[in-house]
Amino acid sequence: MKDNSLKPIPSWIQGGENSGFPLNNLPFGIAAFNSGLIAAVTRIGDQVVNLHKLAALDVFSGLHAKLLHVFSQPVLNDFIELGPQVHHDLRVRLQQVFGLDNTDKQQIDVIKSSALTSFNAVRMLMPVKVTDYTDFYSSIEHATNVGKMFRDPENALLPNWRHLPVGYHGRASSIVVSGTSIHRPMGQTKPVNSDAPVFGLTKMLDFELEMAFVVGKNTALGEHVPIGKARDYIFGLMLFNDLSARDIQSWEYVPLGPFLAKNFGSVVAPWIVTLEALYPFRVDGPAQEPEVLPYLKSVEPRNFDVQLEVSIRPEKGNENIVCRSNYKYMYWSMDQQLAHHTINGCNITVGDLYASGTISGRDAGSYGSMLELTWRGANPLKLDDGSERKFLNDNDTVIMRGRCQKDGIEISFGECETKILAAK
Amino acid sequence: MKDNSLKPIPSWIQGGENSGFPLNNLPFGIAAFNSGLIAAVTRIGDQVVNLHKLAALDVFSGLHAKLLHVFSQPVLNDFIELGPQVHHDLRVRLQQVFGLDNTDKQQIDVIKSSALTSFNAVRMLMPVKVTDYTDFYSSIEHATNVGKMFRDPENALLPNWRHLPVGYHGRASSIVVSGTSIHRPMGQTKPVNSDAPVFGLTKMLDFELEMAFVVGKNTALGEHVPIGKARDYIFGLMLFNDLSARDIQSWEYVPLGPFLAKNFGSVVAPWIVTLEALYPFRVDGPAQEPEVLPYLKSVEPRNFDVQLEVSIRPEKGNENIVCRSNYKYMYWSMDQQLAHHTINGCNITVGDLYASGTISGRDAGSYGSMLELTWRGANPLKLDDGSERKFLNDNDTVIMRGRCQKDGIEISFGECETKILAAK
Repeated sequence: MKDNSLKPIPSWIQGGENSGFPLNNLPFGIAAFNSGLIAAVTRIGDQVVNLHKLAALDVFSGLHAKLLHVFSQPVLNDFIELGPQVHHDLRVRLQQVFGLDNTDKQQIDVIKSSALTSFNAVRMLMPVKVTDYTDFYSSIEHATNVGKMFRDPENALLPNWRHLPVGYHGRASSIVVSGTSIHRPMGQTKPVNSDAPVFGLTKMLDFELEMAFVVGKNTALGEHVPIGKARDYIFGLMLFNDLSARDIQSWEYVPLGPFLAKNFGSVVAPWIVTLEALYPFRVDGPAQEPEVLPYLKSVEPRNFDVQLEVSIRPEKGNENIVCRSNYKYMYWSMDQQLAHHTINGCNITVGDLYASGTISGRDAGSYGSMLELTWRGANPLKLDDGSERKFLNDNDTVIMRGRCQKDGIEISFGECETKILAAK
Repeated sequence: MKDNSLKPIPSWIQGGENSGFPLNNLPFGIAAFNSGLIAAVTRIGDQVVNLHKLAALDVFSGLHAKLLHVFSQPVLNDFIELGPQVHHDLRVRLQQVFGLDNTDKQQIDVIKSSALTSFNAVRMLMPVKVTDYTDFYSSIEHATNVGKMFRDPENALLPNWRHLPVGYHGRASSIVVSGTSIHRPMGQTKPVNSDAPVFGLTKMLDFELEMAFVVGKNTALGEHVPIGKARDYIFGLMLFNDLSARDIQSWEYVPLGPFLAKNFGSVVAPWIVTLEALYPFRVDGPAQEPEVLPYLKSVEPRNFDVQLEVSIRPEKGNENIVCRSNYKYMYWSMDQQLAHHTINGCNITVGDLYASGTISGRDAGSYGSMLELTWRGANPLKLDDGSERKFLNDNDTVIMRGRCQKDGIEISFGECETKILAAK
């Protein structure tokens, strides 16, 4: 069902090839239309395709009886639960119907007049109801940078780091879709020269560039997902901004981990790019030394080549790209993360979100957080309006983008954008 | 709506006074009947009261149009969301209908013949769909004991502990109802004399005696629950067993907190005892020194006097009570936990579960975990069959019980029971 073929599939919808949304992509999302209706959608070029409408037009006849129903739901969970065979069949059908080879002029006319809307004319909503959310810490460059800054520069990585994909549970309720603004959080921090903590606004508000995968298949409590089967449990991937308040974090996080420093808001892009669309972009991961335990041994290629970038746009200013990274840098891969997460029998659920942790590369321009880019504020970033940033200011907008490129084909992850507002 | 009055309310159902389930209690749960039907229930004496049936009999006329519907749901979330006024009105109505003063003989006969079932004849199910789950660490005795064992006996409490209720996000999917057995988990551990971690069964499987509260009211992202209003957001309380694999925990938990050591299964009692039923049992909490920040300042009495005990029953053996503790020992209270959790704008949802952390008292018999009771295995517990326990064995059953007692009135929390099975 999944192969490495990279054959461009031209569509009668123009512009897909250059937009990152050709028929090779076909990501899924939820859109609110001007009419007030909400439906599951995909995207081709700059057109949003109303999947519920297509189902009503009988375009998906013979695929699955529940498609009409699941495409009318306010989240994709029920659609995802239909399973990989349905997703694959639907993908093939969409590629046929929207392909240049489709000679059914009447079908094309009906679709054009009733199922297509300009992307700019819809509001994209949260695509999944997040059931449980876990954040990993799987970039060796990020973990090393943080270890150097906060612990011991000579022993930056903790002893467990190379043996297991360190992760922790996060907050599902406060994960919001791109376009949602987040107020600067308040909390306790402990200034260096103070005996006691103080209460106030965070002064070290940060982004974290991450990718998150969405689980597509339930397990029962006590069940383990073997690493060789892990990808069968993954529906797709999204851009993820794990906003972090560094001063709150450094005071609260011992011994039980980050808490209020993270749960005031995390942001996802509106599109879930399916694992099937991403298969041609698989690449080998970094060598793992020492050798990992057998339950974590993955078959290469275990990583995915996704070019990532982060911009900051000040109020009324221009976008400034502050980071260029790549998902392929990850030391621990998705299949390793999922095999580890379930090795003790922890059950997973359709709609679970598993984020990668900050994706940093080797050179300073690829660091996936302000903490690393400015080295805890020591080297502020200069923006094109002459202003400087140690961390995020109020009214800054953070924009993350991701894309796969190969053999003239481009797959976009859309944008994950959020504006920082002053505290309420 | 809530007062401290402790007037016994006798019922025409016998035995409520001595069972912990008088009309002063009226906890909520979900039962599966032999017929296959599932419904919301309360309990009086040893009788389970089918609330859906009562609604169908028009016993709740005038209270809320949705009661018939919500009582037919497989979880209580929709009922809880109806709000405290509905819960209070329902409580008053149940006390009238089941009270000795009810002279409507015909109503009583219909209820007896169609809405009552012996507790032993039903299977209790998970009462809520847990939306998000947070575990606190709010017993100063527990945190001190752990700090002495794992860190520095002279500085057992970390610097932040007395300034904020330390907590972390946990796994919602693996919280199961009393009566569910849990398989011994596998995972990575690092033996003291080994250079590398090993893979295998946990050798240090533990219980943690906790109470968990269920949120009864949603907030929006960015909203803060002020401490003076926190109790308006709490529906009720349950017994909670936070099973823990200590050897997995000590290897994995730096720097991001417990993960696979906890998420293989946590167990709740089937009954949610409402905060309204518990109001007469409020007591002052321990003095907090140093003074807490203003957003954490609670009005006394901030704690609840709930007598707790934990038993271990070996396969074919007797119950051995290994711990007697009390919820009133908690340093940080529920209102402080909720005010802290939302101070950064983190949104809360009906069905959220917030666990207290292990509830230990000052003397060794009151420690709420095997880790503390046996001091990490140094002082094994002796059971009445002559066997010893450093931690839990396969086929051990752990039973937690809780009750409030005052002026001849007893409020039971039921039982939270789980059996440890050998690994799959």
